[in-house]
Amino acid sequence: MLGKCIDNVRKNVPLVHNITNYVTVNDVANVLLACGGSPIMSDEPDDVEDITTICGGLNINIGTLNKSSIEGMFLAGKKANELGHVVLLDPVGAGASKLRTDTAVKLLNEIKFDVVRGNISEIKTLALGSGTTKGVDADVADAVTEETLDSSVAFVKSLAEKTGSVVAVTGAIDLVADADKCYVIRNGRAEMGKITGTGCQLSGMMTAFVAANPDAKLEAAAAAVCTMGLAGEIGWSRMQEGDGNSTYRNRIIDAIFNMDAATLDEGAKFEIR
Amino acid sequence: MLGKCIDNVRKNVPLVHNITNYVTVNDVANVLLACGGSPIMSDEPDDVEDITTICGGLNINIGTLNKSSIEGMFLAGKKANELGHVVLLDPVGAGASKLRTDTAVKLLNEIKFDVVRGNISEIKTLALGSGTTKGVDADVADAVTEETLDSSVAFVKSLAEKTGSVVAVTGAIDLVADADKCYVIRNGRAEMGKITGTGCQLSGMMTAFVAANPDAKLEAAAAAVCTMGLAGEIGWSRMQEGDGNSTYRNRIIDAIFNMDAATLDEGAKFEIR
Amino acid sequence: MLGKCIDNVRKNVPLVHNITNYVTVNDVANVLLACGGSPIMSDEPDDVEDITTICGGLNINIGTLNKSSIEGMFLAGKKANELGHVVLLDPVGAGASKLRTDTAVKLLNEIKFDVVRGNISEIKTLALGSGTTKGVDADVADAVTEETLDSSVAFVKSLAEKTGSVVAVTGAIDLVADADKCYVIRNGRAEMGKITGTGCQLSGMMTAFVAANPDAKLEAAAAAVCTMGLAGEIGWSRMQEGDGNSTYRNRIIDAIFNMDAATLDEGAKFEIR
Repeated sequence: MLGKCIDNVRKNVPLVHNITNYVTVNDVANVLLACGGSPIMSDEPDDVEDITTICGGLNINIGTLNKSSIEGMFLAGKKANELGHVVLLDPVGAGASKLRTDTAVKLLNEIKFDVVRGNISEIKTLALGSGTTKGVDADVADAVTEETLDSSVAFVKSLAEKTGSVVAVTGAIDLVADADKCYVIRNGRAEMGKITGTGCQLSGMMTAFVAANPDAKLEAAAAAVCTMGLAGEIGWSRMQEGDGNSTYRNRIIDAIFNMDAATLDEGAKFEIR
Repeated sequence: MLGKCIDNVRKNVPLVHNITNYVTVNDVANVLLACGGSPIMSDEPDDVEDITTICGGLNINIGTLNKSSIEGMFLAGKKANELGHVVLLDPVGAGASKLRTDTAVKLLNEIKFDVVRGNISEIKTLALGSGTTKGVDADVADAVTEETLDSSVAFVKSLAEKTGSVVAVTGAIDLVADADKCYVIRNGRAEMGKITGTGCQLSGMMTAFVAANPDAKLEAAAAAVCTMGLAGEIGWSRMQEGDGNSTYRNRIIDAIFNMDAATLDEGAKFEIR
Repeated sequence: MLGKCIDNVRKNVPLVHNITNYVTVNDVANVLLACGGSPIMSDEPDDVEDITTICGGLNINIGTLNKSSIEGMFLAGKKANELGHVVLLDPVGAGASKLRTDTAVKLLNEIKFDVVRGNISEIKTLALGSGTTKGVDADVADAVTEETLDSSVAFVKSLAEKTGSVVAVTGAIDLVADADKCYVIRNGRAEMGKITGTGCQLSGMMTAFVAANPDAKLEAAAAAVCTMGLAGEIGWSRMQEGDGNSTYRNRIIDAIFNMDAATLDEGAKFEIR
């Protein structure tokens, strides 16, 4: 059951090293605390190896990358691989610039990732060297819909097989797959797209979930997606007249803070294909 | 009517590239989403030209500038000029340090800006190479008041003529002018000064407004100022006992999220001089 | 009385230069505004000396340090010393990496700090060149408890004597000491540890308090600690069902915004040893 995965986060309190963008970093930290993990941020090449050594997981998010932080990503990733730590890649904006695409592809080649999480356009860019990305949001033409679901599931499983990573594609319908099995998840609300960084927050939280459940990585990644989506539903149910995306951001993090195994198991909407 | 300007933002969903400070960047992103735009942040010189190419507007804010991001500002600005994109300058802290003053002046000389937005001290620094700036807030001695209004309007129009940009000076009374026409705006509340980054948020939003209304830049910039000020009034009306500046920040962004053309047209308080 | 210290902040509106991490910087700025100060952020070596010159206090926080910002810390610190400004050190993560430990120790050797504030593990690292730091949170083994209070008070006073700084160690029980006198403070709530950056926020606010009360540095630092802890208590009392750490963050800053001298004097829980 997915609920057990969040219980393990709260019990193990995984320390997660984040090399992440400065846009949403505060929310990533607060979401990690909300779900029961503990965050630390460091991108300086001279600092990252020591920091990642004391952590249980590493979350690499390439938004607002720069030359120095890119160097930090490779150093931290290799060290985390050496130590057998969980490593996650969030290829923010892959496809939107040559630097981002090249960096994401090179990271995927040189680092072993336990999980890769992005929107469909970013993941297609990684997989195919193509796909269109409209900034940091997925292109409508790429969207996972009921109509494209079969082929999307096959695509995600195939990328998971090729990379040996759990692949998580999030959007209106979320897909979380390894080579054999794909969680098709229908939690969440469209209004979450009106808050900056719900994807970044999910990547941070997912790193904690997988680090705290090393023997059930696929299930843990799916549990993180369901937690985020369900928190989006619960948070929305608490919105009042006049509230907007800023309050919604707070409500979602609050809902994660209050999430327990029973709520998650009852509210998670998924099928396995 | 100003209301049409926000309708156009929601209809066109302009993608705005922000090179902005790390203090208020999250709020800038959420305000852009709240008003109907879409944000992307990038300051790395090797990344900015690709990123700005896929956007409709570029918001250059010099707060927390560094050598690398300054290089990014010039590269992105020149590329955006080449492509005919809307470009805005927010000279945060011009007058407070030599680096900030020099960078702002050099940007103004080498990049064609559609809009320059700042507080009166920053704008005076740009215009006259003088003015006193108390950190990132305007100096009281520079303030636009009913007493200094005539000369302030003349000053702003004259700078607009000289630069060919729309010039927006925000404070207790806001002025938004081109060479011929000046909106004198009296929306907003003094308590907005107790929240960090309402100016940065406005610059991001203004870039989206002008990008979505290319044939009415002056009006679009004025509409953004009225939207921010009116959101400050609406947000304040929702404050409860015990609330303070952190909740007020959320309430203002929420009010932008819920702003529609009719509310804006009814609530905007301006005269044209 | 401690209440007078916050009155002085609101009266003098100290401008505080912050070289601080990008994780919690927005909250630091809003807390500084909430307590009556004014924030400015700058870490670029070419910018920091000018910026610190116009300020009354300098807050150096080494979280997310990088080569350039480290250079900025030394330049700003030396300039602030020259000018007789208040300077505070927050050694975030000292003990967690060689770079952080070395940077904190070198800063302490080369800059004269009016105040050093951290958790017990960070402060022990500074004092003894040892101590275990679990990321950015204190190690349980180091905790200040009723059982270890006598020795902890002696330790903090001794470090204050050795460094000539006020030393503030925050945790379940907070200690704020100079060589002769130690405030033992019991405000606050454990749930504050579930919000990222309450320590960073306190460091920013403490810089403003000490800058506004130059003749009563120890008392001012203790007043800042009591303000933060009491705001945590007041903020918690306003939490509603379903609220979590994100709303709690807002409530704490709101409570600081509304704090007055009488509330502080009535709510402060401390003894002097």
